Amino acid sequence: MSVGNQSTYHGAIQDMKPEDGRRRVVIQKVAPEIDAGRYPIKRTVGETVKVEADIFADGHDAIMCQLLFRRADTSSAWSRLPMQPLGNDRWQADFLVPEMGIYEYSLEGWVDDFVTWQVDLAKRVDAGQDVEVNLKTGAALIAEAAARATGNDANQLKRWSESLVSSQKIARRIELALSDDLRDGVGRVPDRIHATRYERDLQVIVDRMRGGYGAWYELFPRSTSDDPARHGTFEDVKARLPELAEMGFDVLYLPPIHPIGTTHRKGPNNDPSPKPDALGSPWAIGSQAGGHMAINPKLGSLTSFKALIKAADQHGMEIALDLAFQCSPDHPYVTEHPEWFRTRPDGTIQYAENPPKKYEDIYPFDFETEAWQSLWEELKRVVLFWVEQGVHIFRVDNPHTKPFVFWEWLIAGVKAEHPDVLFLAEAFTRPKVMYRLAKAGFTQSYTYFAWRNTAWELKAYFEELTQTEVAEFFRPNLWPNTPDILTAYLQTGGRPAFVARLILAATLGGSYGIYGPAFEVMESRNLAPGSEEYLDSEKYQIRVWDRQSAQPMRDLIAMVNQIRRENPALHSDRRLTFHAIDNPQMVCYSRSTRDRSNVVLVVVNLDPYHSHAGWIDLNLQAMGIEPGETYQAHDLLTDSRYAWQGDRAFVQLDPGVVPAHVFRIRRRIRTERDFEYYL
Amino acid sequence: MSVGNQSTYHGAIQDMKPEDGRRRVVIQKVAPEIDAGRYPIKRTVGETVKVEADIFADGHDAIMCQLLFRRADTSSAWSRLPMQPLGNDRWQADFLVPEMGIYEYSLEGWVDDFVTWQVDLAKRVDAGQDVEVNLKTGAALIAEAAARATGNDANQLKRWSESLVSSQKIARRIELALSDDLRDGVGRVPDRIHATRYERDLQVIVDRMRGGYGAWYELFPRSTSDDPARHGTFEDVKARLPELAEMGFDVLYLPPIHPIGTTHRKGPNNDPSPKPDALGSPWAIGSQAGGHMAINPKLGSLTSFKALIKAADQHGMEIALDLAFQCSPDHPYVTEHPEWFRTRPDGTIQYAENPPKKYEDIYPFDFETEAWQSLWEELKRVVLFWVEQGVHIFRVDNPHTKPFVFWEWLIAGVKAEHPDVLFLAEAFTRPKVMYRLAKAGFTQSYTYFAWRNTAWELKAYFEELTQTEVAEFFRPNLWPNTPDILTAYLQTGGRPAFVARLILAATLGGSYGIYGPAFEVMESRNLAPGSEEYLDSEKYQIRVWDRQSAQPMRDLIAMVNQIRRENPALHSDRRLTFHAIDNPQMVCYSRSTRDRSNVVLVVVNLDPYHSHAGWIDLNLQAMGIEPGETYQAHDLLTDSRYAWQGDRAFVQLDPGVVPAHVFRIRRRIRTERDFEYYL
Repeated sequence: MSVGNQSTYHGAIQDMKPEDGRRRVVIQKVAPEIDAGRYPIKRTVGETVKVEADIFADGHDAIMCQLLFRRADTSSAWSRLPMQPLGNDRWQADFLVPEMGIYEYSLEGWVDDFVTWQVDLAKRVDAGQDVEVNLKTGAALIAEAAARATGNDANQLKRWSESLVSSQKIARRIELALSDDLRDGVGRVPDRIHATRYERDLQVIVDRMRGGYGAWYELFPRSTSDDPARHGTFEDVKARLPELAEMGFDVLYLPPIHPIGTTHRKGPNNDPSPKPDALGSPWAIGSQAGGHMAINPKLGSLTSFKALIKAADQHGMEIALDLAFQCSPDHPYVTEHPEWFRTRPDGTIQYAENPPKKYEDIYPFDFETEAWQSLWEELKRVVLFWVEQGVHIFRVDNPHTKPFVFWEWLIAGVKAEHPDVLFLAEAFTRPKVMYRLAKAGFTQSYTYFAWRNTAWELKAYFEELTQTEVAEFFRPNLWPNTPDILTAYLQTGGRPAFVARLILAATLGGSYGIYGPAFEVMESRNLAPGSEEYLDSEKYQIRVWDRQSAQPMRDLIAMVNQIRRENPALHSDRRLTFHAIDNPQMVCYSRSTRDRSNVVLVVVNLDPYHSHAGWIDLNLQAMGIEPGETYQAHDLLTDSRYAWQGDRAFVQLDPGVVPAHVFRIRRRIRTERDFEYYL
Repeated sequence: MSVGNQSTYHGAIQDMKPEDGRRRVVIQKVAPEIDAGRYPIKRTVGETVKVEADIFADGHDAIMCQLLFRRADTSSAWSRLPMQPLGNDRWQADFLVPEMGIYEYSLEGWVDDFVTWQVDLAKRVDAGQDVEVNLKTGAALIAEAAARATGNDANQLKRWSESLVSSQKIARRIELALSDDLRDGVGRVPDRIHATRYERDLQVIVDRMRGGYGAWYELFPRSTSDDPARHGTFEDVKARLPELAEMGFDVLYLPPIHPIGTTHRKGPNNDPSPKPDALGSPWAIGSQAGGHMAINPKLGSLTSFKALIKAADQHGMEIALDLAFQCSPDHPYVTEHPEWFRTRPDGTIQYAENPPKKYEDIYPFDFETEAWQSLWEELKRVVLFWVEQGVHIFRVDNPHTKPFVFWEWLIAGVKAEHPDVLFLAEAFTRPKVMYRLAKAGFTQSYTYFAWRNTAWELKAYFEELTQTEVAEFFRPNLWPNTPDILTAYLQTGGRPAFVARLILAATLGGSYGIYGPAFEVMESRNLAPGSEEYLDSEKYQIRVWDRQSAQPMRDLIAMVNQIRRENPALHSDRRLTFHAIDNPQMVCYSRSTRDRSNVVLVVVNLDPYHSHAGWIDLNLQAMGIEPGETYQAHDLLTDSRYAWQGDRAFVQLDPGVVPAHVFRIRRRIRTERDFEYYL
């Protein structure tokens, strides 16, 4: 059987195996399946994969379908699960992925002659027809099943086969023929010789829990000394760990920690001609002190960095590093491997450009070089070096400016040896490019969240992320701010804007992060009108933040992260439902666990300036509430509790107080019926 | 590069060809593409295939994309067409399929260094930057293009390359560098060495025009004698041809014309114990007089059948035969090839059943026989036999009770030798089975049209058929009635119901048919309450119809078929748009040609009993009308003409007169501006 080439069918019976002409079952429209199986889907350990497909045969015979799954990276055998019919020839089953690594799944379906016979027999019996000949047919089918079985099963089937055509009373034989015991007995040894196996084995990348759930904090190590004149060190970062742990963060992400180039070094506010003491941008990587595997001596040493990793671990946190695959003109690669860069006609090396803008402090790698293979290998060596030092999370800078195929190769290669390594794609580019990077293997991705501020925008974007195929391969990591992004909303909205964006980020998805302490102090000054750049950005200079004034926001962050930890509904991106609300300045959504045992309902007033109120039309089913049931909405931010019933609820939020409700929905409210003596 | 197996990327640079790491362009989400290219799409000669895909690369470089297409069944070279960007990384191009047979298409995309350079240069020039070095880069790119070119093109490119770095004034050189001539010259010899070719070649089955457009008429030859005592013959059918041609039919479809079995022969109204003179059902094929390649002697001979084909052809009509792959117990196959049938435990051959119903006059083939290969070959021999006699259209009886893979093989095999042969699938079964048969190769398919009677049902169903992927492979053939289907709507609705269903069938799709003369005489008597079977069905007996009373309906049918012929908008299933109307008893839709030069707007009152009126919200764009334009709605049924303007129109339809408007929309109405001396 050839696929996609009609002409091969012509006169080609001789090319078909004896089974091929009798494979009657069709399997199609399998979901999830990304681009015809070209890319894997993603899960974290302990999640399930719900698989659906159209499965059917010609005619009216009964069919059986099984979901097949196994670890792909070991030589384990296929496990099989029966699929359940959903109606309209759609079937479903789901399987659990308990371990990190790669799983495979596929499907099989076949016409079940025995069940067909049993169903038909029941109709004949109901119609009062003589079924002696039919019982003989059934006996033969059961005898065939006995031949496929072993041990006691075989003996039992043999006895049943004989009983059907024995001298027992017909009523007794019919009873046996139609029994569930007989159906189950034959069902244990199905005849799959003409089964159709789905033509593709599909893959699941299974990451550790942190791949789908975590609170991130980004800071510039050099700004941690609390003294504008002293360059912060890993030791200073270490001193901040208790505060970060108290706030409840899981991942501490550091911008590049490597030596910074001096040629064309940028000064404060991106000044191209700075004073000699300018520190430059950490993303201008490489100097005589080394490149991507070296540490900026002003921050410390490899030893002090490893000590930081260890200390973070003791506080329950993990260090994430930045992978910025680009060089300063002073990077050792520039002289050691000129073949990895593009040379201009004047003999100089091509600096980064986005014409007419020039970034002369950055040399991009030339991924179209003839020497791409040695470049790729070196870049993988960089990743593996840091993995060896204990870094298992990487935030990748501008991955969309390197070939997709490179990332696919790099990430698969690293994860094959270290399946616990996670990669966050820092791409802010066109949607299809963002998604293609996720398909290439990135564990998580930055998103457009920062620019989605209205209720309509949030609903449209998050429904795309969570309720379409995108949810299978793209995991959002939601950042209200980054060193590159101070949105107009935060510039102008004051505290209510920061609180609203924090709560949205922390509850709309499993992973979120903030760039601090700029966030806690609610830094809102931008470089120039219309710019999203911070004034006096830490990208180019040390900043000393007024951390005393940040305490109220730190307390709120701690509370929000505590709510996240205590509510498993918030531990992934799954099961997000928007509820209609009659005030367009407000947004309402719920999150829940698979079994609906934990449900969180969030309402946010998106207008930082005015109090708003509205009626919510609640989707009770999404919250696991029965139509008539009374339930409790417990606001975890204020500890207020409301008894609600039905699908209408009134809310009012004053941004000057707190612009959001984060309700835990509790299904069970005691009533008089709970008293033993009620009945 | 391995697909679907992540682990092969690991450490596998050595398996990648030197080009592979530099293929930066991604091609995905190609449409049309059915089930990852497993099945071809369908077109008729002269139609176009509009191909779209997401095509993009990393970074910000300019890319170029081409659509590739060719005949698949000859050794022709690929033709290439540039694709146009639609925005959001979506690209489009379309190609024409001028001949019957199989075409293939695919896509190619690459990063265009020259265009990237030219676009960047323009930005540099606008910013007033020194571009001497950039001109050198461009000169090198043009020199490379010259090396790929030949003859004059090569010389011209070489001259341009030299000019860019010559001593001419910089302004002149910049003008040349940014010129369209230069862009086009280099564009003629693109550097495709790192081009990405889409991973699949997709196929198009191109049928002759009748595959997508035709009016069918079904009749029972034995009822054509006008004498209940005399069995009609092919000669009698021939005598009907002028009348059918006058009505404007293109295809005359005959139920099986083969010898009818006598064992368990059925009498009038499916009587299982009929009188000896019962004629039986034509679908109980085979007797001592022969089987599927023989002719019922009561109808005539092969010679008289071929004469009928010839006479039909002279009237511009084609004969379609029924392919009913099943046997009466008296079929020669039963004794010659018992291996093609299933044997029951009592040694008898298994008759057809749908328990508890038994069809003892029919033996189905056993498609699960070990001898399936010889069975398949024999059934193909049957088709090819009739093709040789001049039959090139087959209506296939109950194809859904035979394996899909059999049809795929049979139809591809027949069409490989005879691409003009058309197959109509008579399957009334679950939607996914219907669609799978179409994918297997059936040219056209029966539909649920007969049971879609309300405006909502019609819109939902026809939008599924024409505005989803289904339109690519499933061609509806719309029948208001068949010998098996006399709907409740026709049983109870009288003349308005027949007229409404005729007009809907004739204008909703390219192909439609009626079962006559039952239709023209508006036969509405069913066998029993709740039954869709005709009383005294022609399936079991000769009927003599009162053809005098049928004249008014014949005139209407002739008019409707004439409207179809004169309006190319009705010559396919494409470009159907429903327009909202504020009366749910009415339905409104338009059809148009690709260039909107022919537009037909249909309004039907679906209530056979009452007059209805309503306001239509017209989708002017679908009709090619500008918002402010005045246009003419010319009712082709009544010859009334209305001048309309804007997107609101009022209609009123009395079913007692005529329950439908079929408007030709004429865009150009002369105004004072058309006079020469107006200006």
